[in-house]
Amino acid sequence: MHHFASDNYAEVHPEIFEALAKANQGHASAYGSDEHTADALRKFKETFGEDSETFFVFNGTAANVLSLKALSESYHSIICTDVAHVQSDECGAPEKFLGCKLIALPSSDGKLTIETLKKFWETGLAQSGEQHHSQARVITITQSTEFGTVYSREEIARISEFAKAHSLYLHMVGSRISNAAASLDCTFKELTADLGVDVLSFGGTKNGLLYGEAVVFLKKNLARDFQYIRKQGMQLASKMRFISAQFEVLLSGMPGQELWRINARHANAMAKKLESALAGLAEVKISRPAQANAVFATLPRNVISELQKIFSFYIWGSAQEATRAEVRWMASFNTTAEDVEAFVEALKTLLTKVK
Amino acid sequence: MHHFASDNYAEVHPEIFEALAKANQGHASAYGSDEHTADALRKFKETFGEDSETFFVFNGTAANVLSLKALSESYHSIICTDVAHVQSDECGAPEKFLGCKLIALPSSDGKLTIETLKKFWETGLAQSGEQHHSQARVITITQSTEFGTVYSREEIARISEFAKAHSLYLHMVGSRISNAAASLDCTFKELTADLGVDVLSFGGTKNGLLYGEAVVFLKKNLARDFQYIRKQGMQLASKMRFISAQFEVLLSGMPGQELWRINARHANAMAKKLESALAGLAEVKISRPAQANAVFATLPRNVISELQKIFSFYIWGSAQEATRAEVRWMASFNTTAEDVEAFVEALKTLLTKVK
Amino acid sequence: MHHFASDNYAEVHPEIFEALAKANQGHASAYGSDEHTADALRKFKETFGEDSETFFVFNGTAANVLSLKALSESYHSIICTDVAHVQSDECGAPEKFLGCKLIALPSSDGKLTIETLKKFWETGLAQSGEQHHSQARVITITQSTEFGTVYSREEIARISEFAKAHSLYLHMVGSRISNAAASLDCTFKELTADLGVDVLSFGGTKNGLLYGEAVVFLKKNLARDFQYIRKQGMQLASKMRFISAQFEVLLSGMPGQELWRINARHANAMAKKLESALAGLAEVKISRPAQANAVFATLPRNVISELQKIFSFYIWGSAQEATRAEVRWMASFNTTAEDVEAFVEALKTLLTKVK
Amino acid sequence: MHHFASDNYAEVHPEIFEALAKANQGHASAYGSDEHTADALRKFKETFGEDSETFFVFNGTAANVLSLKALSESYHSIICTDVAHVQSDECGAPEKFLGCKLIALPSSDGKLTIETLKKFWETGLAQSGEQHHSQARVITITQSTEFGTVYSREEIARISEFAKAHSLYLHMVGSRISNAAASLDCTFKELTADLGVDVLSFGGTKNGLLYGEAVVFLKKNLARDFQYIRKQGMQLASKMRFISAQFEVLLSGMPGQELWRINARHANAMAKKLESALAGLAEVKISRPAQANAVFATLPRNVISELQKIFSFYIWGSAQEATRAEVRWMASFNTTAEDVEAFVEALKTLLTKVK
Repeated sequence: MHHFASDNYAEVHPEIFEALAKANQGHASAYGSDEHTADALRKFKETFGEDSETFFVFNGTAANVLSLKALSESYHSIICTDVAHVQSDECGAPEKFLGCKLIALPSSDGKLTIETLKKFWETGLAQSGEQHHSQARVITITQSTEFGTVYSREEIARISEFAKAHSLYLHMVGSRISNAAASLDCTFKELTADLGVDVLSFGGTKNGLLYGEAVVFLKKNLARDFQYIRKQGMQLASKMRFISAQFEVLLSGMPGQELWRINARHANAMAKKLESALAGLAEVKISRPAQANAVFATLPRNVISELQKIFSFYIWGSAQEATRAEVRWMASFNTTAEDVEAFVEALKTLLTKVK
Repeated sequence: MHHFASDNYAEVHPEIFEALAKANQGHASAYGSDEHTADALRKFKETFGEDSETFFVFNGTAANVLSLKALSESYHSIICTDVAHVQSDECGAPEKFLGCKLIALPSSDGKLTIETLKKFWETGLAQSGEQHHSQARVITITQSTEFGTVYSREEIARISEFAKAHSLYLHMVGSRISNAAASLDCTFKELTADLGVDVLSFGGTKNGLLYGEAVVFLKKNLARDFQYIRKQGMQLASKMRFISAQFEVLLSGMPGQELWRINARHANAMAKKLESALAGLAEVKISRPAQANAVFATLPRNVISELQKIFSFYIWGSAQEATRAEVRWMASFNTTAEDVEAFVEALKTLLTKVK
Repeated sequence: MHHFASDNYAEVHPEIFEALAKANQGHASAYGSDEHTADALRKFKETFGEDSETFFVFNGTAANVLSLKALSESYHSIICTDVAHVQSDECGAPEKFLGCKLIALPSSDGKLTIETLKKFWETGLAQSGEQHHSQARVITITQSTEFGTVYSREEIARISEFAKAHSLYLHMVGSRISNAAASLDCTFKELTADLGVDVLSFGGTKNGLLYGEAVVFLKKNLARDFQYIRKQGMQLASKMRFISAQFEVLLSGMPGQELWRINARHANAMAKKLESALAGLAEVKISRPAQANAVFATLPRNVISELQKIFSFYIWGSAQEATRAEVRWMASFNTTAEDVEAFVEALKTLLTKVK
Repeated sequence: MHHFASDNYAEVHPEIFEALAKANQGHASAYGSDEHTADALRKFKETFGEDSETFFVFNGTAANVLSLKALSESYHSIICTDVAHVQSDECGAPEKFLGCKLIALPSSDGKLTIETLKKFWETGLAQSGEQHHSQARVITITQSTEFGTVYSREEIARISEFAKAHSLYLHMVGSRISNAAASLDCTFKELTADLGVDVLSFGGTKNGLLYGEAVVFLKKNLARDFQYIRKQGMQLASKMRFISAQFEVLLSGMPGQELWRINARHANAMAKKLESALAGLAEVKISRPAQANAVFATLPRNVISELQKIFSFYIWGSAQEATRAEVRWMASFNTTAEDVEAFVEALKTLLTKVK
């Protein structure tokens, strides 16, 4: 049985595990001077363009924090949303490593809107030129968002244009960028470099890897000193080949049939299937558009607690009603149609009982 | 002519300047091993109680940041208001030196309310025990507040009780603690140690000093390593006697007639006088209760710009109406009744003209 | 063919790889709330004692830096050797994350001696109580050392006694602790907890793991806030089970036949074999006692460069003679007798030719 | 009676104190927008050249640390001497604020030599381009040095040339730059900008100021973001006019008769007088050339302890003989010939007695 708690509850995808086994043949140079790394980096360049440059790190927190370090000084501020992972779920890692202020603007279903940005700029505090204030330097957005929504290419283009107009960098948290690209049916490049994104935290772990994330600079010159930032950030893997070998496979496949896309497309489809199945249920209210691999819904608290005895999943957010709460159900690359059906069945049964 | 921009526009008080001259006699041990420092520290102990321990630093930003450093680790969070100086006006100094997250809660006329605190605690995020979240460790409040209001002793006692109940430290930003104590007609001890405040940033510069602030630990054991924090924080003065000599005088005087109180009481009275004089003016609306030495008001923007040609003062905050804005008028120890009258006269004339 | 560059050039041990495959069954809770982690932590407790507490991280730099963070404040100093990895090979990660000064004392074949410590203490600078100086707080030693030597239990006991006498913590960098324990034929506990070591960075990657190191607190109370330090240090793995599953196997086996010991014992034996085989060669001079899995030797530079065309290995250190240099040859768990023989043969041939 | 402990034991110079009194007239804009600051900055530009840009801070530690912050990233290293103030006497302030490694090279009477630099470069560790190593970025030298010696212009030129050749910045710690310039009978510009120094920490406190130091960028473009660094570094004075007014006077005077030079020249002369008077004393050995305002000597420990009962001064360094120690005697702008004579007399008496 598969859970709906998180896509990082899932196993390693069989093809990726197989790649690990294959990479485990003979001695190989450490710290990234091996052939698997060379090949994986070549694949990233093919994927993101010649002006891109990629570095592997261990996890998503590091991908985000080290990306931002490459773009900011401690007296800068970083614009994010109030539900951003960097703001809420990294135990202050950004503040510790960057030494700078995060400015969390209100979000709409997880998205930062251009209207919110403009309104904040009108206060004059973002880039005051005043020595008393941290100066805004980076906008970071999450694609797909923490609420399972997906920015359209137009939405990103508008934010990117705004960033350029204000000499800001645009960073994208892409722990689930594959789900976004699958949802929009586009390439990674179309979602990032082509839209003016400067740096991307590219997720692997949540799409079938054992471990490993990538920091993808879409403009090579921004990466100049990143090897030192990574090492000082305690994120240089000695047996790098094992991260690389996974990414080699993840990025492989015919256009439209790359492993990352197959995995993400399936997870998205399972979320969609779940959303549809819930449509008719009176007590369950879909609370966010399910555009990637997550379904958010509100339902009675007593049903939640019973359902959690069977399936793992999280209550989300904090400010909730007394008798109802919002929950997150997350599909992964190996969630099956049967999983979804069993889940819906269990929920339906509980809804009847509880009533 | 005196301005209404800030109490740090004012001169050094004559008695304090005289104290500097007196201290400037002969060689003296550096870094605080001199007699003026010994005497000043004794006076602080008399003022704040035997369990207190005091350290001098150069400015208010340092007093705040170093105080908080003594109370927190980088994985903690610090609760402040959305208008707190540490949040808005220190160019990220807290994040840089502490490495930790500030949580800015909504304020009411500059005050943090117990209701707001409780509401935030109900979200479960403050001290989740969850490794993903910065854990709340300190509440910092400003007395008198950035909006010229004063917490009553009861309000502080309630926040202090809340802090103790949640194993939080209570820090007080007291750049204008003298104005608060004068306003409430109480002693410093009654405002701090007696209410359970743990550490106080005690202001000198805004109440007539040339430079110099104090970090007052109300519980000696919290000060254990502070000498190192101060030095590493680049705040150890070599010619310490000159900070100390000023504080000796500031804390001197018969009870109820200490220099700090005379200065603050006068500044408060001048603010009150200004507030009263404005009462009848149709176009000027007092926007915050003037409980210390500042008057906040909204008035037409065209009047503001004309008035600023005569007197220095600041437009405050950011989110303003198109034709009106909020301004801050700050009285200092040497603002005179004539200053206030001239100011009101100028404003009245402008109001007539502009109409 | 196997290289002699580093034990992190080696593959993953087959049994450990098998453990990864087994752990890759079904969904599992993330961030350490899974069964493999529970089991691995239990094994660490059995190995290091009931008062120990263990946390997994991604790599050795992090194990070292986060360990030290748990033991020090930024105004402390950390005593290490001039050849310590934390001093020379972590791109300033300790200074960045700890904000404190490293004091690198001279070493003898990689070891810190009690005489050196005492001499430094006599300067009065280590713990002066003077606000101008970083105060020594931690001694960190590497076992086995960066030069392939092994501290005897008596040597560690003396350093530990010194540490306790001066209220210092004792940290052990144990990327190759297995090689040391195999060399001394003792248990991990006998090498650490029993000798008063406070925290150990326990190495996995260099002894057959795919990735993963452990921070082992030998005194539970020191670990109190470590979960937050790990997360803020960007070292919390979401799919933790895969680190844990490897350690489960590494620590398994009958006493004296644990996998870690078998691996380390073999690597040590191969280094010994290499050392012996070199004994008779006129131009090759063993430069450090080969007590663990490394052999250090000096030999002619022209021989080195030819030999490096066949086998990967590093020239070590920096201050070298013009025509000779010191090199490091490192054996790993899967270095074979044939590898050693082929290597010696190649070296002998080159020595003849070059002459 | 004046002491020989430090030039920061001295009073404020009467002309400078007078300047403070004059500046204490009427309200003035805070944070540097006042006329005294404008005038003082103009004087600095006249002194150091049109391409210079100057910022005032509170103390020397801050001047050093913030200067270095403007020149380095956390993954850089900073080359200093083993006796540099930044290395030994700032409680880890550089490591905390910069997050980077200091590399302390051996010094000769306080000086860094070009030979030492070259030797360090030959190790290949300084700027390896290797991701494992902090990359050297700044050389910082102290003029006059911590041992009272003065770099010749040629010595600085050679270091500067070396720095440029290796893309390093050259920073000068100038807490006593006035004593060096007086000693070499040259201008500040000839000692800094003309020799390729990039940034100077310019000392005021030790040459007659009440408080205040300056960070002088000799290349304006390096100062671009320094206002934010200063504020975030907790070093922005609100009543800035009082620092500025002092520097106005310190830099005033006919060429060759500026107040800074008169003060420094006198202090140097007093040190020279002391050195000469000691020449004949058998038990006192001058240990460093007295080129600025300090005399270093070794003498019997029992004499030292008796002499310290009359005059304050410091035993210097650490590695000393059992019966003799090195001491520092520091002259200041107001040390008198009588002070020196009384001191020498007392010393002579003690030497006779002790024998």
